[in-house]
Amino acid sequence: METYEKFAVTRIRGDKKEIFNDDVVTETPLTIFLNGREFVTIICTPEHIHELVLGYLYSERLIKHKNDVVSSVIDEERNIAQLEITQVEGFTPGVRLKRYITPGCFFYTTANVGADKINSNLTILSSQLLALTREVATHSGLYKITGGVHSAALCDQSGVLLFREDVGRHNAVDKIIGHCLLDGMSTQDKILITSGRISSAVMVKIINSRIPIIVSYSAPTTESIKLSDHFGITLVGFARGKRINVYTNGQRILESEAGGDLSV
Amino acid sequence: METYEKFAVTRIRGDKKEIFNDDVVTETPLTIFLNGREFVTIICTPEHIHELVLGYLYSERLIKHKNDVVSSVIDEERNIAQLEITQVEGFTPGVRLKRYITPGCFFYTTANVGADKINSNLTILSSQLLALTREVATHSGLYKITGGVHSAALCDQSGVLLFREDVGRHNAVDKIIGHCLLDGMSTQDKILITSGRISSAVMVKIINSRIPIIVSYSAPTTESIKLSDHFGITLVGFARGKRINVYTNGQRILESEAGGDLSV
Repeated sequence: METYEKFAVTRIRGDKKEIFNDDVVTETPLTIFLNGREFVTIICTPEHIHELVLGYLYSERLIKHKNDVVSSVIDEERNIAQLEITQVEGFTPGVRLKRYITPGCFFYTTANVGADKINSNLTILSSQLLALTREVATHSGLYKITGGVHSAALCDQSGVLLFREDVGRHNAVDKIIGHCLLDGMSTQDKILITSGRISSAVMVKIINSRIPIIVSYSAPTTESIKLSDHFGITLVGFARGKRINVYTNGQRILESEAGGDLSV
Repeated sequence: METYEKFAVTRIRGDKKEIFNDDVVTETPLTIFLNGREFVTIICTPEHIHELVLGYLYSERLIKHKNDVVSSVIDEERNIAQLEITQVEGFTPGVRLKRYITPGCFFYTTANVGADKINSNLTILSSQLLALTREVATHSGLYKITGGVHSAALCDQSGVLLFREDVGRHNAVDKIIGHCLLDGMSTQDKILITSGRISSAVMVKIINSRIPIIVSYSAPTTESIKLSDHFGITLVGFARGKRINVYTNGQRILESEAGGDLSV
């Protein structure tokens, strides 16, 4: 399945009219079956489906390790994923679904996230962080084509390691997490940079994946700030051009030397 | 409950650091009980809750008229809505929930939306439409304060009639629809302008509310284009400054006279 399709569109600019073929991002349902039962349907962009499935299960704590997946059959033509997973104690799928599912997104508070506080020693110079946010912007593929996707990038101090896009802001993050799980790459010493707003639902994925620093080009919500404060995550918002807002756990963002490249 | 809260934030700009109080949009769960059973939890900004509840039920076809709501008790402190509704034929809540609920959003195709085609004679000059999109931008309240919300505006040719904001893009649209339902205002001869991307889930709300023209500052998805084409809705995207992209049913957008105000 293609990640975008062409549609005829009429562009009106002033009193000028032009007809052209526009590239539009594909929105398609992916249905996940767990242990023979239909579990959830995720609306997504059909790319890196295996990563998305694994990342979703891990970031929602339905699996704790890659080998909690006993078997998986992913039909990328029909977008159906059938998995056998071991039952993770305290995270039975049915209970989770019943308690938290909503049409817009999930909702969590510090009281109902079963995770420990993150005590990472990772630090980064604010100048390095700003350079990273500019580097991420150059990776965009589907966004440049369609203008209709969110992105997520996994980074370390040296640069962007992985970049993913999806029509859903949660999915872009899950694709990153799924790739790390499949590839054996640690998320615990990394920085995640995303285009999407940071809601509690995204923050819980970050907490469960033990990512110490999350950066958004956009705004956080009240609940995401409370969660990141409580769980020891560094939350940075409004990373735009030459500035950032650090909301919580700012000890990981080191001040740049005077006259660093931010002044350019 | 307040629509935003203050949080201390460190802003880093170049090698300058300043600490200030930032206004952050409130994200809170609203739980709807239908006929004594917990039905859904919507993550929202706590403002115009009654409108949101009614708009949600109507745009998801759980009620067909305002008087399908037999009684409602809305606790705006605890964000709990308890409603008794008449059972609308073919739209039993349980079935709908089972069939369509997803973590990110709902998904619909032309095959599973039980609505008729819209045959509205509403037209608007492209110059008027562009003027409207600029007028909507001046209404923003919570966005200017927090940078973290989506907006929706109901308009006619003469201007903006109603403006709503919410942390969820679906909710902003539902608040508009709910207001119209409560107030007896028709949606069938109006234009809806929204900041959010147009996915199939938003498009179905537009179809069910019989709004003939939907305009977004942002991108549509493939499924929203297919739905709007099939159901006779005029879909306009990327309404930015002086241009618009008309994806479907462009007969309602009339060309401006040469030298109109778009050339300014």
